[in-house]
Amino acid sequence: MKTEILTMLRETAGYVSGQALCGRFGVSRTAVWKVINSLKEEGYEIVSTPRKGYRLDHVPDIVSESELVSRMKTKRLGRQVVFLSETDSTNTQAKRLAEEGAPEGTLVVADMQTAGKGRRGRSWQQSPGTMVSMTLILKPAFAPDKASMLTLIAAHSVAGAIKAVTGLPAGIKWPNDIVIHGKKTVGILTEMSLSVEQDSIHYVVVGIGINVNIREFPEEISDMATSLYLECGRRISRAGLIAEVMERFEQDYGAFLQTEDLSGILEEYNAHLAGMDREVRVLDPAGEFTGISRGMNRSGQLLVEKEDGSVVHVYAGEVSVRGLYGYV
Amino acid sequence: MKTEILTMLRETAGYVSGQALCGRFGVSRTAVWKVINSLKEEGYEIVSTPRKGYRLDHVPDIVSESELVSRMKTKRLGRQVVFLSETDSTNTQAKRLAEEGAPEGTLVVADMQTAGKGRRGRSWQQSPGTMVSMTLILKPAFAPDKASMLTLIAAHSVAGAIKAVTGLPAGIKWPNDIVIHGKKTVGILTEMSLSVEQDSIHYVVVGIGINVNIREFPEEISDMATSLYLECGRRISRAGLIAEVMERFEQDYGAFLQTEDLSGILEEYNAHLAGMDREVRVLDPAGEFTGISRGMNRSGQLLVEKEDGSVVHVYAGEVSVRGLYGYV
Repeated sequence: MKTEILTMLRETAGYVSGQALCGRFGVSRTAVWKVINSLKEEGYEIVSTPRKGYRLDHVPDIVSESELVSRMKTKRLGRQVVFLSETDSTNTQAKRLAEEGAPEGTLVVADMQTAGKGRRGRSWQQSPGTMVSMTLILKPAFAPDKASMLTLIAAHSVAGAIKAVTGLPAGIKWPNDIVIHGKKTVGILTEMSLSVEQDSIHYVVVGIGINVNIREFPEEISDMATSLYLECGRRISRAGLIAEVMERFEQDYGAFLQTEDLSGILEEYNAHLAGMDREVRVLDPAGEFTGISRGMNRSGQLLVEKEDGSVVHVYAGEVSVRGLYGYV
Repeated sequence: MKTEILTMLRETAGYVSGQALCGRFGVSRTAVWKVINSLKEEGYEIVSTPRKGYRLDHVPDIVSESELVSRMKTKRLGRQVVFLSETDSTNTQAKRLAEEGAPEGTLVVADMQTAGKGRRGRSWQQSPGTMVSMTLILKPAFAPDKASMLTLIAAHSVAGAIKAVTGLPAGIKWPNDIVIHGKKTVGILTEMSLSVEQDSIHYVVVGIGINVNIREFPEEISDMATSLYLECGRRISRAGLIAEVMERFEQDYGAFLQTEDLSGILEEYNAHLAGMDREVRVLDPAGEFTGISRGMNRSGQLLVEKEDGSVVHVYAGEVSVRGLYGYV
C-alpha cells in the first residue's frame, strides 16, 4: 500500500484526499495516516491540510524499495527490488539471491557498498547515498558466449539514461566504462553462472555502479574519476536515474532477445562511443597497437583501422582514447 | 587429533599403545580414551586390551570428515572436507561455499542428497549412505572455455577409481556418464561462475554422483541404472572410493594444468570409452547421425567417422552406443 500511496501522491499535482485513499485501499483513516507518517519519517515532505488531504511537496534523494518500485516504468525487469542500506557488493548479494532462486528481473540496490568490485579491482571508500550501486539478475535462454553483450547493452542503457536525466555527454569507453569529459563515471561488471555440460546459463548478474552525488574524490584518482554532481553542478535523484536506466535496459534487452545481436542499439551505441573515428591505443592480449576506432559491430567487437588500412576486430582488452593530454 | 589417531590405528596392523598416543599428541590417557570412545560411537570397532593398547578391527562404511581426511592421499585437493549428513545438492552447497570464499580443493560430501541434479534433471529418492555425492571446488587460472575438459578429466579419474576398487569394467559414455555393463552408474555435473568482461573463472564445481551400495532401483529406471553393489555383489567402502577418486583426479588435473589439453589422460580415457570403434548415434544440436566412434581427441571432442569416411568432431550432444538391444 505504501508504494501505491507514494505513486498516487507523486502523480497528483495538488492534494490527494484522505477519503480517496481510504476508499481506494479499503482501509481506515488511521491506517492511511500511519503510512503517511512512515513516509515522512523516511524524509518525504508531505503537507497535510484539513479537508484537503495530503500533498507531496518535496521528494528527497531516497532510495528504498517503495521509492524505486513506485517510479519503475518497466514491465518485467526491476519489478522486484531488494534494497540494502549497506552491503559488501550488490553483485555478491545478487549471485546469492540467484542461487536461492530469485527470478529474472530481480534488482538489488544498495545505499552503500563496502566491497564494490571494479574491473581492475580498484575501489575506494564510499559515503552512503552518493552512488548508484545496483545489480540486475537475468536468466536468459541464449548461449553463454552471448553474455558479454549484456555489458555492452547495459553501457548503452546507462549512457542514454545519464544523458536524459542530466543532459551530460556520457561517452561509452568500450566495452564497459562510461566517461564524462574523459573521466570515468560508471563501471559495469557482468558475472555469470553456467552449466558446463549443457552449455547453458543458470543466471547472469549485471552490476552497475554510477558515481552520482560524490562531491570529492581521493586525490590519487581525481584525474581519472568524476561524478554526475561534479560535472553538472546539482544533485541528481538516484531513484529517478535507476528507474530511467531500467526502462532503457528493458527495451534494449528486449531488442537483443529478438535478434541475439546488437543491431537494435548499434547506431546509438556508436553515437555515444568515446573515441569514435579518433586514434585509440589497444592493449590486446596479443600485443599493443594504435589505430583509428571505427566503432563497434553488431557482434560487440570494436573495429580498429590500422595505418595500413587493415581493420582489427578487438574482442577483449583495454582501449585508450587519445585525448588532449595523452591517452585516457 | 581424532583424524590423526584414526590414521595411526588404520596404518598399524596390530596394537597402538595408549602411551604412544599420549606421547605423540602430548595429551592425557583420558583425552585419548575420549577420542577412542567417540570413534566407537561412530561405529568403528576398536579393541582395547590392557597393556597392549588399541586395535582397529573393523571400519564400517562411515563417511565423515575425519574418516575422509584420514584416508586422503592427496597433496592439495580434498584436504578440506565439508561433510553434510543431508543436503539439497552438494553442487549447490559447494557453489554457496565458493561464493563465501572457500579455497580450491574444498570437497563437499553428503550422506544423502534430497535434490541431486542429473544432466537431464532426472532424480530419484535416495536412501542415506548408499551413494557417493561429492563436489569439488576448483579455482583454476585457465580460460572459461577450457572448463568443459574438467568433466572429461573427472570421468577418467572416476572410471579408473571404480576399476581399481571394484575390478568392474567401468566405461565412459562421452562426455559425462560412466556405465557398467551398459547401465549408468555415475553422473558428473560441472558448473562454473565467471566474470564476463575479464573472461576469467571465479570458480568451478565438479559434482560427482556414484551409485555405490544401492540395492534396488525403481522399476522404471532399473533397465538404465545400476550400482557398484549390484554389479560386483559386495558392499564398497564409500570413503575408500572417494579417496581413490581424489587421488586420481589430483594427478589428472595436475597433468591438465601443465598442457591445458587432455594429452595426459587421452590414451587411458579412450581405453575406457564405451563404444570405441563401434557404431554410435549422435544427437547433435545440428541433427542426428550415426557413425563409428574413433575416440576423443586431446581437445575433448568425440571423433565420429561417417559412412563416407568423413570424421565429425562432436563438441556437445548426446551419444548413444549401439548395443545388443539397440542404442544405450
